[in-house]
Amino acid sequence: MNDMPSSTVTTDFERIFHPRRIAIVGVSTRGPGFGSGIFHSLRTIGFEGEIFLVNPKGGTLDGVPILPSVADIPGAIDFAIIAVQARAVPEALELCRRKGAAGAEIFSSGFKELGTEEGRLLEQQVVQVARRGIRVIGPNCFGIYCPASGLTVLPGPDLSRESGPVAFLSQSGGMAIDFANTGKSIGLRFSKMVSFGNGADLREVELLRYLTDDAETGVITLYIEGVADGAAFFDAMRAAARRKPVIVYKGGLSNAGARAVQSHTASMGGSRRIWRAMLRQVNAVQVRDLPEMSQAALAFAMLPPRPFRRISVLGGGGALGVAAADAAEPFGLTIPAFDPPLVERIEAILPRPGSSAGNPVDVANPFVAPEVLKEVLLLAAEDPRIELQIFISLLSHYKNMARMMGLPVKEVAPYRDLAAHFQEVARRTGKPVVVVLPNPRRGLDHLDVVEMIALARRTFMAHGIVVFDELHEALRAIGHLNVHYGRKTV
Amino acid sequence: MNDMPSSTVTTDFERIFHPRRIAIVGVSTRGPGFGSGIFHSLRTIGFEGEIFLVNPKGGTLDGVPILPSVADIPGAIDFAIIAVQARAVPEALELCRRKGAAGAEIFSSGFKELGTEEGRLLEQQVVQVARRGIRVIGPNCFGIYCPASGLTVLPGPDLSRESGPVAFLSQSGGMAIDFANTGKSIGLRFSKMVSFGNGADLREVELLRYLTDDAETGVITLYIEGVADGAAFFDAMRAAARRKPVIVYKGGLSNAGARAVQSHTASMGGSRRIWRAMLRQVNAVQVRDLPEMSQAALAFAMLPPRPFRRISVLGGGGALGVAAADAAEPFGLTIPAFDPPLVERIEAILPRPGSSAGNPVDVANPFVAPEVLKEVLLLAAEDPRIELQIFISLLSHYKNMARMMGLPVKEVAPYRDLAAHFQEVARRTGKPVVVVLPNPRRGLDHLDVVEMIALARRTFMAHGIVVFDELHEALRAIGHLNVHYGRKTV
Repeated sequence: MNDMPSSTVTTDFERIFHPRRIAIVGVSTRGPGFGSGIFHSLRTIGFEGEIFLVNPKGGTLDGVPILPSVADIPGAIDFAIIAVQARAVPEALELCRRKGAAGAEIFSSGFKELGTEEGRLLEQQVVQVARRGIRVIGPNCFGIYCPASGLTVLPGPDLSRESGPVAFLSQSGGMAIDFANTGKSIGLRFSKMVSFGNGADLREVELLRYLTDDAETGVITLYIEGVADGAAFFDAMRAAARRKPVIVYKGGLSNAGARAVQSHTASMGGSRRIWRAMLRQVNAVQVRDLPEMSQAALAFAMLPPRPFRRISVLGGGGALGVAAADAAEPFGLTIPAFDPPLVERIEAILPRPGSSAGNPVDVANPFVAPEVLKEVLLLAAEDPRIELQIFISLLSHYKNMARMMGLPVKEVAPYRDLAAHFQEVARRTGKPVVVVLPNPRRGLDHLDVVEMIALARRTFMAHGIVVFDELHEALRAIGHLNVHYGRKTV
Repeated sequence: MNDMPSSTVTTDFERIFHPRRIAIVGVSTRGPGFGSGIFHSLRTIGFEGEIFLVNPKGGTLDGVPILPSVADIPGAIDFAIIAVQARAVPEALELCRRKGAAGAEIFSSGFKELGTEEGRLLEQQVVQVARRGIRVIGPNCFGIYCPASGLTVLPGPDLSRESGPVAFLSQSGGMAIDFANTGKSIGLRFSKMVSFGNGADLREVELLRYLTDDAETGVITLYIEGVADGAAFFDAMRAAARRKPVIVYKGGLSNAGARAVQSHTASMGGSRRIWRAMLRQVNAVQVRDLPEMSQAALAFAMLPPRPFRRISVLGGGGALGVAAADAAEPFGLTIPAFDPPLVERIEAILPRPGSSAGNPVDVANPFVAPEVLKEVLLLAAEDPRIELQIFISLLSHYKNMARMMGLPVKEVAPYRDLAAHFQEVARRTGKPVVVVLPNPRRGLDHLDVVEMIALARRTFMAHGIVVFDELHEALRAIGHLNVHYGRKTV
């Protein structure tokens, strides 16, 4: 640790996230391994750059020759992926540095996280090589996922190539791959994701600073187990949160959690109370788990950057209205009752009896025509207090109608019409429409419903309508928006 | 309301829940309607009794003749389903009573929930007929679902015919069908479900008393918006909770929620604080929404009737261990660290490096062999403090392995072996094994993973291993067990 501090080294993040020539050091020709795994992943996801494979034993992998040493690579490389045994890592890293690599990700574990003297020393050697001029991600990590360049985390051959506004920094590789997959499922798109594991060199502070200025990134998310330098971290957080929303999932806030952190990435945890206070102070959004983080990121990525405090809730089924009202209150959202004249106008177009137009609006049955729902939303938006509208769609009920009609449910459920209408409503009223798509039908006999709901989600999202699975999740996500932008504007 | 109180009428619940001869009053031969809808549902689910259809216009429906009047039905009936217009309901009900029906469910709305004088009077007339000797479910409801007899709620043609221990009483029809579908998806089986809507006659108190003694029912769940007689309700709750777990979802505890309740089932709500205190006092379990209710019911239905305070958590991925620890604490669950000798024995069989054996146990990668996982669980169970084990399975990761092998993921993911091993572990150790099956892969390109996870869930459940989607949900459900049985045993 006697070298110059890494912050004085100029880091070429462009060559790290968008490399044209990369080396994979430590591919095995026999059986599965991290090196051959990442090669397979890069090929499958369609990385367009040149890939050089390295293993002293030589041979070929999927028709690509394996070079005996990094030194044998013709010309310079931008980035390296290192998957050799821990003991061989420092030398491999040094060879990559000499080949001109701006950075390297080290998948190998067996470093500081072991808690052994050998692991600690090996990690120190990695840091020493890094200080000579190559930025290191890891060790004990899954690396970088960057949809634009086609770099992907180790277990991510099938992640999306579509870029989007959300960046993710993670001390956990498992969390990174789970978030990337969850994001793909719910329509969340990423700019850059970095699983940095032990964070021997590049870690939260520098990466945060980079993302703060990164034009591709509009929302920053983090999974943090512990930070190397608390003061620098909170400074970086504060600076970041002034520019864009920062969502933090801090793991290890319980006693047992802190113990688990220790053996996972050898970080120091910190008390629940202190973290909460610090995150609040820098106007970061704190979430408790991966689903909540995904949903918050979705809301920040898709909704306008402002708080929404008074909302309307529309849905098929009175209990849903009741549930909406109950769930909204803890998040500081109110569902103001409409004035009687407006109620009458809404009632006039809803099916009777059974419906209720007071806000929440109960549209009484799941098969109300999309055109009618559009009119109801347009009317509800006339209440000047309403800032955002939530529509709880019971599309799964079309399964019964489809069965009676002898048609596939995906052809019967009117999600295309709904998406077009809701988009128009949002545009004409200037008030976002949020859709909740609960699906109680998801067993083996309802895989067709699962597919239809996935199609509906994609269609709504393509029309700029954000979709959540459960009402409670939508309200919580909007609550996060209010906390972040509410603090800002006050 | 001047007739004798209904409690002095002997109610033949057997003939209501298991009718042999039923009438559907108000079938329409033209287009969809509640009457023809329920006929279709009963046929589809395979109700084995005789069904008589009634409509003054006569005709046939699906080859079944429609009788002009209830009086034309040959012989007595056990039960009636009434779907005529509100104004025609009292007379239809009276005719059913004269035909000897023990009960009737009234789908029609247009009664007290309208808030009009006409609606109130019509509901009073229904009550008057009921007092003469026919028990009424509804009006403004979806009726009864009883898998054993094949009676089903209106929108439930495809509900399960498998009976199980969970009963549900609901003021909301939508909640009933959603819970029935959710239950089918997650492997929860029902004894009886009653959507009683306005509850003009039979409602929470009498039904609770019936279920308390019902041998088919082991767990009682309720969705309540408001009760007719608070003191009687809490007496019935107390008596029920002494015999079996009672799980209550009280809707309308917020201001806006109470307003929504008023227009939904015309019930009076009640304050959040009072309900919480009352439910605690009678040792009922309070939940906040349908997912939480489903998960709590699953835990009570499948886990032994006792608290579980100290648990082990095993999973693939260190962050999952961290997350487990963090999530356990708020529910009063502890994850005690194993003693060093046990840690060493577990470490000896886990893949190295990357794993961690302290509890939470991080098995380091998602592809550890089922036999090894069995051994780890057997070892962990040796810690005498551990009362229950949670295994977080990352089966969705087998998608990548399946792709490389060119096989369907459902053939590659080893859920059958895992289920058999976990069942053996639970049997040999006497400590339940709970499985969490998170699935971040659920978009259109991962429908095969969704199917595999559904197959895995069914297989685990068939081996007596209870499955939850998310760790947080499993912990919360176990927390409910602890609250209920903890109070009981203290």
